[in-house]
Amino acid sequence: MTDKNHAWTLARTPSAGWPTDGDFAWLECPVPSPGPGQALTRTVYLSLDPYQWGRRRLGIEAVGDICHGRTVSEVLESHSDEYQPGDFIFNTNGWQTHGLVGDGVDVFGYMFPRKIDPAIAPISTAIGILGMLGLTAYSGLYVQCAPQSGETVVVSAASGGVGQAAGQIAKIKGCRVVGVAGIQAKCDYVVNELGFDACVSHLSDSYADDLRIACPDGVDIYYENVGGKTYQGVLPLLNQNSRITLCGMISQYGNTDGNDAGKVWRETGAPFFERSNTQVHGLFVGNYVASHQAEFLSEMGGWIHDGLVKYREDVADGLETAPEAFSAMLTGGTFGKTLVLVGSDPTADSSLAERRARGNVLAD
Amino acid sequence: MTDKNHAWTLARTPSAGWPTDGDFAWLECPVPSPGPGQALTRTVYLSLDPYQWGRRRLGIEAVGDICHGRTVSEVLESHSDEYQPGDFIFNTNGWQTHGLVGDGVDVFGYMFPRKIDPAIAPISTAIGILGMLGLTAYSGLYVQCAPQSGETVVVSAASGGVGQAAGQIAKIKGCRVVGVAGIQAKCDYVVNELGFDACVSHLSDSYADDLRIACPDGVDIYYENVGGKTYQGVLPLLNQNSRITLCGMISQYGNTDGNDAGKVWRETGAPFFERSNTQVHGLFVGNYVASHQAEFLSEMGGWIHDGLVKYREDVADGLETAPEAFSAMLTGGTFGKTLVLVGSDPTADSSLAERRARGNVLAD
Repeated sequence: MTDKNHAWTLARTPSAGWPTDGDFAWLECPVPSPGPGQALTRTVYLSLDPYQWGRRRLGIEAVGDICHGRTVSEVLESHSDEYQPGDFIFNTNGWQTHGLVGDGVDVFGYMFPRKIDPAIAPISTAIGILGMLGLTAYSGLYVQCAPQSGETVVVSAASGGVGQAAGQIAKIKGCRVVGVAGIQAKCDYVVNELGFDACVSHLSDSYADDLRIACPDGVDIYYENVGGKTYQGVLPLLNQNSRITLCGMISQYGNTDGNDAGKVWRETGAPFFERSNTQVHGLFVGNYVASHQAEFLSEMGGWIHDGLVKYREDVADGLETAPEAFSAMLTGGTFGKTLVLVGSDPTADSSLAERRARGNVLAD
Repeated sequence: MTDKNHAWTLARTPSAGWPTDGDFAWLECPVPSPGPGQALTRTVYLSLDPYQWGRRRLGIEAVGDICHGRTVSEVLESHSDEYQPGDFIFNTNGWQTHGLVGDGVDVFGYMFPRKIDPAIAPISTAIGILGMLGLTAYSGLYVQCAPQSGETVVVSAASGGVGQAAGQIAKIKGCRVVGVAGIQAKCDYVVNELGFDACVSHLSDSYADDLRIACPDGVDIYYENVGGKTYQGVLPLLNQNSRITLCGMISQYGNTDGNDAGKVWRETGAPFFERSNTQVHGLFVGNYVASHQAEFLSEMGGWIHDGLVKYREDVADGLETAPEAFSAMLTGGTFGKTLVLVGSDPTADSSLAERRARGNVLAD
């Protein structure tokens, strides 16, 4: 046991790009003393995760703060009934050699400290496959996307912590699993050691073709960790009723403000979707004709009849006016459903002039 | 009855922007003669819809083609048992005054011709509230997003054909409904005539603030027709477990290739999502800790124990190396779950050197 605590603090808020030496400052300070209900721990393992860079770039960590990180720690000294010296725990000491746990010590978000039993699995798994990382793979693939046997699942960053877990869960569920990774050794590992059906490299010029060939039945589920080029290759392969888990877009985390790909990440709301568990449904009405048109006509017809639903039309007069009305519709110049009266309507109860005069509000 | 058919054809594939006169050419040609099993119709109403511009810009319609469009038509002459002169039908004559229906006439996608009963509702509704437009609103809002009473629903292009229907369905389901529209008259109509709870204008400099104030409990469902600035204003308001229906992004349909917003639309895969009915799930693991962690630990622990799941770690040695390992992880230089051995691990069954030598593959 040393009498010094060592830590990395944030030296500046990184403006762009990837980490460099100047972003971090080494700190030496006294080991803290546990108060009543508290225990002193030493860090055994520190977890490095992509999301930490996002926190630093976005200014969530202040300059001078000890960098956040999940840890596996050993209890050295305890004034708490909950922790005994020699206990191993999951906690969030961050990038430092020592830290406190117990009464009055802030819990980092949802990362409540918990004891680890070394008999079950190596203690490092508490920040890996049996920790948030594993739960991230499990909830994103299994809970959100509900894989069905025989479906094709693509996992990006396939050899990374989340990717390898997600892909193996998909294999257990009977799916065809195709990884995307970088160097050949990673691709080989994913196929030969983890049992993925295939793995293609995003570093290859033929990436998009390789992926298409590896997914002859298209893609039903995409577990997204990377974004950018990796993501672009998956898009044209998506099947009907496919699902995407938007776990991360690591390729975007280092982008500068002027970079289009970084803009895509921010402007599509990826950070919000991650936080709010948002589902985005693509809508193509043709998918619902067979399944829902009859129910719709019955229900909507009833609502209109009962006066619960009104509608407004903007009727252009004569086929000659179609281009002009079309342009007006696209740029906000029409009001309500836009249509063209091409010939006469013998069923209308009033003239077009009269319908326009009352604002084209029908079924009032 | 005239003896001439008139039509608008596509004069060129538009490269960018909004429609101009040169995009369309007026055509006069003979009215077609119906063959056996066919009927001749005259177009009463032609529907103008934003998706038509996408078809033309993407080259799906060839130069010289009669422009596609959904229509309400009247049967003039019939050699078919199915259609009688005087019948009104939904079909896809396109931008022309006459067209054929029946045997051997191509059906446009899922838009099967069907007879319309003028006694039920005005015949124009077959290309409006009781047609694909209504089904688009119904399936996107009701089927995909499952609105719950008391939730807040935001509808963009609120006074347009789809928007007014979607918002009213949400009202029937007991939601707070906030529209986004352009000019004041549209906002007033949506609130005063359709009964939306509020409507804000995207033309205002205070749009984002106005929307936030109109949604004091955040946004649970967003019915997306517009994209761009309208969409950006909704993002920060999204609640936990919110849902977005990606119906259209009309603001992007006219963008040029160099335009960032247009890139967003294409690069996020919006066209693919629409077609494939894809669901995108944002993932934040913290949302699943309370609900799924216990089940996860039990299931994943069992899979590891049974050898169904392996994992690989990349262990950096010593806290001093954390910044270097962190940067390597972000740029693809590590392999597997990245962690730092900060202190000694008394529970490990082998030294770090031995673990590295066997590729850090644990639980083999």
